[in-house]
Amino acid sequence: MLKSHGYAALAKKSSLVPYSFERRDPGPNDVVVEIAYSGICHSDIHQVNGDWGNEIFPMVPGHEIVGRVAKAGAAVKKFKEGDLAGVGVMVDTCRVCEACKASLEPYCTKGMVGTYNARGYDGELMYGGYSNNIVVDERYVHTISPKLDLAAVAPLLCAGITTYSPLRHWGAGPGKKVGIVGLGGLGHMALKFAHSFGAHVVQFTTSESKAADAKRLGADEVVVSKDPDAMAKQTGTFDFVLDCVAAPHDMNAYLDLLRLNGTLCSVGLPETPLTVAPFAILKNRRSLAGSMIGGMTETQEMLDYCADHGIVSDIELTPITKLAEAYERVLKGDVKYRFVIDMATLGK
Amino acid sequence: MLKSHGYAALAKKSSLVPYSFERRDPGPNDVVVEIAYSGICHSDIHQVNGDWGNEIFPMVPGHEIVGRVAKAGAAVKKFKEGDLAGVGVMVDTCRVCEACKASLEPYCTKGMVGTYNARGYDGELMYGGYSNNIVVDERYVHTISPKLDLAAVAPLLCAGITTYSPLRHWGAGPGKKVGIVGLGGLGHMALKFAHSFGAHVVQFTTSESKAADAKRLGADEVVVSKDPDAMAKQTGTFDFVLDCVAAPHDMNAYLDLLRLNGTLCSVGLPETPLTVAPFAILKNRRSLAGSMIGGMTETQEMLDYCADHGIVSDIELTPITKLAEAYERVLKGDVKYRFVIDMATLGK
Repeated sequence: MLKSHGYAALAKKSSLVPYSFERRDPGPNDVVVEIAYSGICHSDIHQVNGDWGNEIFPMVPGHEIVGRVAKAGAAVKKFKEGDLAGVGVMVDTCRVCEACKASLEPYCTKGMVGTYNARGYDGELMYGGYSNNIVVDERYVHTISPKLDLAAVAPLLCAGITTYSPLRHWGAGPGKKVGIVGLGGLGHMALKFAHSFGAHVVQFTTSESKAADAKRLGADEVVVSKDPDAMAKQTGTFDFVLDCVAAPHDMNAYLDLLRLNGTLCSVGLPETPLTVAPFAILKNRRSLAGSMIGGMTETQEMLDYCADHGIVSDIELTPITKLAEAYERVLKGDVKYRFVIDMATLGK
Repeated sequence: MLKSHGYAALAKKSSLVPYSFERRDPGPNDVVVEIAYSGICHSDIHQVNGDWGNEIFPMVPGHEIVGRVAKAGAAVKKFKEGDLAGVGVMVDTCRVCEACKASLEPYCTKGMVGTYNARGYDGELMYGGYSNNIVVDERYVHTISPKLDLAAVAPLLCAGITTYSPLRHWGAGPGKKVGIVGLGGLGHMALKFAHSFGAHVVQFTTSESKAADAKRLGADEVVVSKDPDAMAKQTGTFDFVLDCVAAPHDMNAYLDLLRLNGTLCSVGLPETPLTVAPFAILKNRRSLAGSMIGGMTETQEMLDYCADHGIVSDIELTPITKLAEAYERVLKGDVKYRFVIDMATLGK
């Protein structure tokens, strides 16, 4: 077995503490990634707190992982020792279902194996990226361009692909009016992508104070969603709205923004059910949709797109010893825009 | 002015009573239709009861209208005196917006003028089909084939097109698995159409007693939705589900039926908000959509399709003197499957 250490939650809602554990010995198709940086995703906090009812302890969170290949198995083709590598939200899927064959692995009918808080198909408990290393089949490992700031690449593995995928799927691009709801970890990536794809992008935020930053990140317009007149002016004009807000909020206000055949896609995963007025979707034949992270092919495409276009996450580096403070600030929305753990602070 | 008489609700939740009123004198583009049959739509009851908060009294309901042209204006091209004619849910739209130009008139950005419980753009109060005649611009009047039973054609103007349109829009046809939820006025038309289009059709119903009838109407399978095992077997297998139920119910159970990129479309217009679990749409990148009636072109296409394929509504004729009883039975779901008022019972 491979010795690993990191930080784990040992029980629901507990603080994360230093934790030593073992990973499987790498097989011929596996790579061992020595982790340099690991992003902090809002969903890490949801899972530590048991908000989704699927928690397994001890839990080493982290699914925005970048680092260097420390060892590549004999059959590994994409990587050699020393290469940059990235691991996202999943580390295995069935590989044979229709979704897997189409590289839409998050929609695998057997169910994907999450990077942490999950068990492999053989029962192995998965530990995530708040740790010094990880063992993953190369099929689920991405190549990373050295052109970009490595720490700022980490959030692309979840926040990046979670917004890139629906924006691509629903055709955000030139001639399209696209709304982004919420300017946090997901929202700021959505804004960067939608702007880069050539759409006319309107950022919706509850905080007037975020307007200047939204413009800097690519918004053509900023609407403060608490202003009913400003909202009313946008009614029925959007092709696509990507809702990145994790807190419960009124979906109907955003459904009303959609023009004929428009779609509101929610990726923020609020803890409470979404309530939809029947007339809000009837009108303009609107859709409320969900979306997961992208498949392996699309995630690599996104990473390559980011390298070509100089796109990374806006991040704040944190030592792993200050996870509690970072979690608290994420819950308050007090980070621009993603915390990334500097794994050099983990120690031996 | 043109003298008319019919049945009206004079106040919210009141019984309908005989009522005399005037309609506009027909202009050069108008036809006067002498009404032979008028369907009873569940939405008539909603509007009489003020469930949607948009009620105008006196209200003469009825938007499933068939009859014969009694008079055609000088500029009318599609009709001559004596022709069969049908009027559905709308009698005017702006005619110049993008939706109108694409003959998606229900999505007119100015807002369509409803056949009743609505005002024309000039303020004229609209009275519907529970009456002896109606005056409508020929652009909003459909031709009707003499091949079909005229009384059974009436419900096609609302129940028919409300189900035909989303089934066409979301591609119900060969190789697709389609679910129909609810076997009432809308549901039984949805079932007939989906079967006729060549889809594999599964009827969902709360009443085991309806199974035989569903098979007769074209269902390949019938699932009693109260049976959790039967529901579980269908999880993740549907391309499209059309939910025709007006009563509040659990949407998530039907969202769970959808496979990758599947859509659940609600046309039943429950009075209470729909509640959607975020994970229910996230999984399989599902959509919850709404849909209105179809546009004028599609409605005519539907009527012609019905004539070619011998499709009509299953109806029960009622005299207009028994509206109260009919309404009560609609609310109990005790009609197979649509009441149609025989206007010969109205008298002079």
